[in-house]
Amino acid sequence: MTKFVYSLAEGNRDMKDLLGGKGANLAEMHNMGLPVPPTFTISTQACKAYLAQGQEPAELSAQIDDAIAEIEAEIGKKLGDPTDPLLVSVRSGAKFSMPGMMETVLNIGLNDASVDGLAAITGQPRFAYDSYRRLIQMFGKTVIGIDGEKFEHILDETKKAKGTTNDLDLDVADLKTIVDKFKGVVREATGRDFPQEPKEQLLEAMRAVFRSWNAERAVLYRRQERIPADLGTAVNVCTMVFGNLGMDSGTGVAFTRDPASGAKGVYGDYLENAQGEDVVAGIRNTMSLADMERVDKAAYDELMGIMTTLEGHYKDLCDIEFTVQNKKLWMLQTRVGKRTAEAAFKIACQLVDEGVIDEAEALQRVSGDQLAMLMFPRFDGAAAKAKIAKGMNASPGAAVGEIVFTSSAAVDAKTAGRPCILVRRETNPDDLNGMIAAEGILTSRGGKTSHAAVVARGMGKTCVCGAEELDIDTHGGTMTLRDGTVLRAGEVISIDGTSGEVFRGEVPVVAPPVVQYFEGTLTREEIAADELVNAVDRIMSIADRQARLTVRANADNGEDAARARRFGAQGIGLCRTEHMFLGDRRELVEHLILAENDEQRQHAMDALAPLQKGDFIEILEAMDGLPVTIRLLDPPLHEFLPSHSEITAKAAVAQARGEELSDADKKVAAAVERMHEQNPMLGLRGVRLGLVITGLFRMQARAVLEATAELRQRGKDPRPEIMIPLVGAVQELEIMRSRIEQTAKEVSERTGVAMQDTPIGTMIELPRAAVTAAEIAGHAEFFSFGTNDLTQTTWGFSRDDVEAAFFSNYMESGIFGVSPFETLDIKGVGELVRMAATAGRQARPDIHLGVCGEHGGDPASIHFFNEVGLDYVSCSPFRVPVARLEAGRSAGVGGSDSR
Amino acid sequence: MTKFVYSLAEGNRDMKDLLGGKGANLAEMHNMGLPVPPTFTISTQACKAYLAQGQEPAELSAQIDDAIAEIEAEIGKKLGDPTDPLLVSVRSGAKFSMPGMMETVLNIGLNDASVDGLAAITGQPRFAYDSYRRLIQMFGKTVIGIDGEKFEHILDETKKAKGTTNDLDLDVADLKTIVDKFKGVVREATGRDFPQEPKEQLLEAMRAVFRSWNAERAVLYRRQERIPADLGTAVNVCTMVFGNLGMDSGTGVAFTRDPASGAKGVYGDYLENAQGEDVVAGIRNTMSLADMERVDKAAYDELMGIMTTLEGHYKDLCDIEFTVQNKKLWMLQTRVGKRTAEAAFKIACQLVDEGVIDEAEALQRVSGDQLAMLMFPRFDGAAAKAKIAKGMNASPGAAVGEIVFTSSAAVDAKTAGRPCILVRRETNPDDLNGMIAAEGILTSRGGKTSHAAVVARGMGKTCVCGAEELDIDTHGGTMTLRDGTVLRAGEVISIDGTSGEVFRGEVPVVAPPVVQYFEGTLTREEIAADELVNAVDRIMSIADRQARLTVRANADNGEDAARARRFGAQGIGLCRTEHMFLGDRRELVEHLILAENDEQRQHAMDALAPLQKGDFIEILEAMDGLPVTIRLLDPPLHEFLPSHSEITAKAAVAQARGEELSDADKKVAAAVERMHEQNPMLGLRGVRLGLVITGLFRMQARAVLEATAELRQRGKDPRPEIMIPLVGAVQELEIMRSRIEQTAKEVSERTGVAMQDTPIGTMIELPRAAVTAAEIAGHAEFFSFGTNDLTQTTWGFSRDDVEAAFFSNYMESGIFGVSPFETLDIKGVGELVRMAATAGRQARPDIHLGVCGEHGGDPASIHFFNEVGLDYVSCSPFRVPVARLEAGRSAGVGGSDSR
Repeated sequence: MTKFVYSLAEGNRDMKDLLGGKGANLAEMHNMGLPVPPTFTISTQACKAYLAQGQEPAELSAQIDDAIAEIEAEIGKKLGDPTDPLLVSVRSGAKFSMPGMMETVLNIGLNDASVDGLAAITGQPRFAYDSYRRLIQMFGKTVIGIDGEKFEHILDETKKAKGTTNDLDLDVADLKTIVDKFKGVVREATGRDFPQEPKEQLLEAMRAVFRSWNAERAVLYRRQERIPADLGTAVNVCTMVFGNLGMDSGTGVAFTRDPASGAKGVYGDYLENAQGEDVVAGIRNTMSLADMERVDKAAYDELMGIMTTLEGHYKDLCDIEFTVQNKKLWMLQTRVGKRTAEAAFKIACQLVDEGVIDEAEALQRVSGDQLAMLMFPRFDGAAAKAKIAKGMNASPGAAVGEIVFTSSAAVDAKTAGRPCILVRRETNPDDLNGMIAAEGILTSRGGKTSHAAVVARGMGKTCVCGAEELDIDTHGGTMTLRDGTVLRAGEVISIDGTSGEVFRGEVPVVAPPVVQYFEGTLTREEIAADELVNAVDRIMSIADRQARLTVRANADNGEDAARARRFGAQGIGLCRTEHMFLGDRRELVEHLILAENDEQRQHAMDALAPLQKGDFIEILEAMDGLPVTIRLLDPPLHEFLPSHSEITAKAAVAQARGEELSDADKKVAAAVERMHEQNPMLGLRGVRLGLVITGLFRMQARAVLEATAELRQRGKDPRPEIMIPLVGAVQELEIMRSRIEQTAKEVSERTGVAMQDTPIGTMIELPRAAVTAAEIAGHAEFFSFGTNDLTQTTWGFSRDDVEAAFFSNYMESGIFGVSPFETLDIKGVGELVRMAATAGRQARPDIHLGVCGEHGGDPASIHFFNEVGLDYVSCSPFRVPVARLEAGRSAGVGGSDSR
Repeated sequence: MTKFVYSLAEGNRDMKDLLGGKGANLAEMHNMGLPVPPTFTISTQACKAYLAQGQEPAELSAQIDDAIAEIEAEIGKKLGDPTDPLLVSVRSGAKFSMPGMMETVLNIGLNDASVDGLAAITGQPRFAYDSYRRLIQMFGKTVIGIDGEKFEHILDETKKAKGTTNDLDLDVADLKTIVDKFKGVVREATGRDFPQEPKEQLLEAMRAVFRSWNAERAVLYRRQERIPADLGTAVNVCTMVFGNLGMDSGTGVAFTRDPASGAKGVYGDYLENAQGEDVVAGIRNTMSLADMERVDKAAYDELMGIMTTLEGHYKDLCDIEFTVQNKKLWMLQTRVGKRTAEAAFKIACQLVDEGVIDEAEALQRVSGDQLAMLMFPRFDGAAAKAKIAKGMNASPGAAVGEIVFTSSAAVDAKTAGRPCILVRRETNPDDLNGMIAAEGILTSRGGKTSHAAVVARGMGKTCVCGAEELDIDTHGGTMTLRDGTVLRAGEVISIDGTSGEVFRGEVPVVAPPVVQYFEGTLTREEIAADELVNAVDRIMSIADRQARLTVRANADNGEDAARARRFGAQGIGLCRTEHMFLGDRRELVEHLILAENDEQRQHAMDALAPLQKGDFIEILEAMDGLPVTIRLLDPPLHEFLPSHSEITAKAAVAQARGEELSDADKKVAAAVERMHEQNPMLGLRGVRLGLVITGLFRMQARAVLEATAELRQRGKDPRPEIMIPLVGAVQELEIMRSRIEQTAKEVSERTGVAMQDTPIGTMIELPRAAVTAAEIAGHAEFFSFGTNDLTQTTWGFSRDDVEAAFFSNYMESGIFGVSPFETLDIKGVGELVRMAATAGRQARPDIHLGVCGEHGGDPASIHFFNEVGLDYVSCSPFRVPVARLEAGRSAGVGGSDSR
């Protein structure tokens, strides 16, 4: 016979799979000797059986009877006893926290008879009938599925009749009437009376919890959070304890340290004569935990002792829910508490100093995401601020600019050099250009998965969304505050994407101290004086010591390279040469593209060559002694010409006027027409360009090699690596490699500087390259995974287009938990990375493996890259500290053995 | 000690790896007792060792000495003997035939002394000195690497001085002078005399053959033909025999059956008093083999006997090279002969009838490519034709149309409904639109890998290229024939892509008899009366009996479906619903796209629904009783709107005129702008469209299901399968599947026809789908591999763009042996297909697997699909017979055990 029901004594905190998080932690506390109300847990296995068969297992009912009998014996009350009834709550509790997703029914055990027994024994008839009212309401809504509005309506009507809006003004008679009416609602909906039998109440509530696992919102939440669908939920049946039995009762929540600031010492709220729901409802102001000592010193002292015990036991910040019933303290829940980024760093170091955890463990207590939070620009805390609204913190950062209401106004403001905030009720794909142009985005509707939120996060742009108190009229061009103040386009506002706050006027933005620390502008004294910066400093040094992966930066010029170096980069993983083709060199590039014969083409390249050489000298000098991976030209050449639509329109206008295009324009038009591609992302770019425009890659390679020779002659230590982009077939690499080797030979001969040791490698950014990696490795000293392009081709969508088109829809419907451009899609794209890394290493054991897509700076992705045995990650200079931290963390969890 | 040298007695035809094709077959003939001149073969291993170490293995020289001594003993002559020298040829011979790629040196053993011996013993001084001249010339060019022009120039000057252009007019004195001058050329180039030592001549020639393996043209050829680079070549050292020693000598080539028509009986050419080179030079007309009987009956009879023996031995058509030296017949080469498509089918059946091979073997003697050749439209053989030129048969078929010289003229002609032939010196990517518009393409330059040839084959468009006798002046708009006749634009020509011929005027095009056979328009008597058709009929029935793969067709309407059925399709593997959205329904689709709210959108879909249902009734009826896989809408919706450039130009013109666009145009412009994608191939299409435009796929599914219900109620047996395109994540399929299942339930309830058995499956056309196939199989009754899209995303290029941009470059440089859109790229794309098929079958053993990309009709690809265990291939109706044949052939070579 399968065991489906567990007593507290039979559980512990490691049994979350079977008992859920809440049940496992209740058992843990019980076994530590802490006061937990008698409880039993119906396992997730029972849930899975119920969902598979549409009914609970046959043996479950008897097991529940036994468990109830045990509780009855312990408490000395009986379920359904008309004189002194045992009441229980039925609460869901899955392995992973799914806030707001699951169901709870309180006060099970009350019926028409026992309600009077409860009234008599507590001497509080109002309390008893209010409890009964709550049971019927929760049961009706949760178990039977009656629209909650029906019950609320009856409550509202009764209060209206009494001329009040406060539940507390309802007396026993009112509540009795309400109970009758509630029972009528149940009868009407089901054709049956509200069940009087407590066991039936309990089983029905349990089934409702089971079913709630597959409720639409739960399915969606799991899909978004990538929680497996087949875990099921446990059900906790807990003896009810009441904090609302008088002034010697109460309820509260507490943290063993301040989860916001990370300050040492307990932190929490207490509310006398109240239940948990009342705290949420905010009927009265709570008191701080410190004040609880004054009202109930014994309970307070016991609680303090318990909190010390819990923290020592869990070795971490715990959060707690408790209730005092007639001076008796009961623990209702505990778990390792959530905390802010700042608190995480401080607490991790505090716990090391207190000898509770070691350094390796401290590293696991913080995350790159948290470090990133500490590095976002922020508003000067000391500055005066006029807060006008609060929305959701959809994408962090601090942005200041004038209000614009349309995408085109944003583009205009940007063009005019005026920073702006795009303000919309909600955004849609048409707003994309405006979102790109704006400093930040503010919407009055939509949550964290709305279009605005998703796209802004993807862009790394500050966004506050769903600021519902703002009335935004884009047609009228006004944003009206709750107090009636009207703001118009052009007025400056400041938005805080980290807190969700919106301010009127310009709030000064400052670099947070953690960034100052990484920039190297703080003295050792200043670092020591700031608990947070000091903690970051300590944690970073642990991370650097543990890391197996090294961290490089993506940088295209000396300035970025220098910053990356300050931030701790150990090289450049991606130097894009296309950025060197822009600006005042555009004309030379146009000559190259418009060249009509080899001579003209060579002429254009000869003009570009010395400029390229200068670029490489600058960056190799900034990274002296460290590797610099230089990628030869990647994007399609037509990116350097006007758009096809633009030139077609120009020609059409000329024709309509009976004019001719100028010869120069004609030439450009012909080139644009010739090079126009329906799908440039899948077109003539990367190595294909290098093979078709013979000489182009050779010119670039020569510039790299000559820059290197010159620096070596000057006594420097430049370490370039030449990278061929977009290789799909080994033949492409073979041909290009032999051309570059030939060039290296020539440069060596001319300069007398040996150059044959320059590593030549390739991007792995096409599925075909990943699949044929073994072959390709035969001709590559290194692979650099271009996970952006690899994501595009593996999924078959282009980053530019999809973020506008269907990404928000996919996020909302949970097809993506997170954008695959933000965090590597491990199942799909990651599988190709793993295959290629394994095959490449097998074919060439000393091959050097790295990643240079945006994922190189993403925490979850870094752990994967460590696991599959890459040698380095490369990311934008600003992300380098995050990557260093995660490189250390990933090594700390066993990643170092994965090769 | 490694054995590097093999006598004929030590070899046989299965030793091609070691001895090359030529050496292995010479050994085979020798061991059959046929007269082969004494020969030894230096193995490919020696070549590989030479190439790896830059010199031949130490033991090789002694082994060669032994082999020479053996030949000397057999022949009774000695190498370098000044009175009666043994002469040998040194010929390359790799495992795979590489025509024109490798090297040969004849007459080795001649020097200043032995040339007089040869003159004396043959009594033909002119012959002796001509042979010596040839040796020095070949040696100088091939072994030393002297520009061949230098020798030709001396020859030409000598002839000019004598006032002749014919070699035969040179006498002994002339040839002696030439020999001296040739030796001078050698001395000048090397600083040494021409080597007089025969062994040195032999070794140097052998080394040259070895080195020729890595010559640029050989490397390129191997890359194009996908011949492994590490095989190396063997070297055959053969005793020279001479067909030019008088009228009792001669040389010839022969086939055991007619390789062109397939007619029974030997076929070949003979030339008296000549060497092989003379046949090629075309100095005199050859005689037919039949006439040889008259001039040398004994040799003829012996040859006939040998040919019968060879065919019996090889059990196939053989081709032969032979020489008669003073009435003695020598066999110089044999191999299984190449033949035309027609001959292949006839000979396969002849051999079965003769009891030489069985039916299974007969099936391996023909190919789908050959069957396809027999199905191309052709010119009426009986019609009068005015042939004006002959070029290369670059892409088969017969095309008739007026001459156009520019891409835009082609487009104009097409628009006006006038068929045209695009005539260019050569084509480039700018000509793409014209190539699409034209019936056929004719160029005067470029070979079979030229842009015109590659692109035309990719499009399946008739093309003749490199017709050098045509002088094409596109600017002047003229095409001048060799006789001076000038043809201008507008004049009709006919081009035969199968033969390379060009005709003036319109030649009637007819369906070849094999197509008439498949169409079912021939009677059994007519079939029996035509040897070719009869052979095709017999072979097809063998193929159908052997096949494991079934063959379906891609068809979008009843007519195509009916033809596919006649051609033997066992279902529809791909019915594209987008084609049903075109034509006079475009307006409804535009309403759908322009809909501003759900109501308008629903309205548009409601209008489309009954039309769609009609489409499905038509196709399901035509395929009654057979499966029809219907793919829901795949392409991006904006394909149904004007292009972005077009509408931008329209707006710019209106603005320039100070006008406004009409409201309708404004709406369209807004939609075009909204839906514009940089990379539509990677955009909002397939299942993404279905998820974003809720209701669209449901409407289509409902139309399928209602059509099915109606047909079932009418007693028919419709078998639809619903296919979701472009799935990348199982979540997409899950959501869409549950919507369709809901729709099926609704239709079942409304119509009373059970519909829940309708299979629902997905395309596997994204790398991510292939990588996560196991998961996806959990929700799909079938996979259909969309290898076109899978090729695009795996390689990262789009079919439309690349064929214009860099494909011809890639073909020429050998990066592709064949376009991956023509034949599946087995190493890359194929690996993903294999992974997905294996994982899908593992996850769901009864999953049905097929392919519906263009590769479903490609012979090489079909063999791969059979090997990885797919259940069916689907291709265009016209390719169905080819696919049936290859399905049978692939099963015949062990493919049936691969599952």
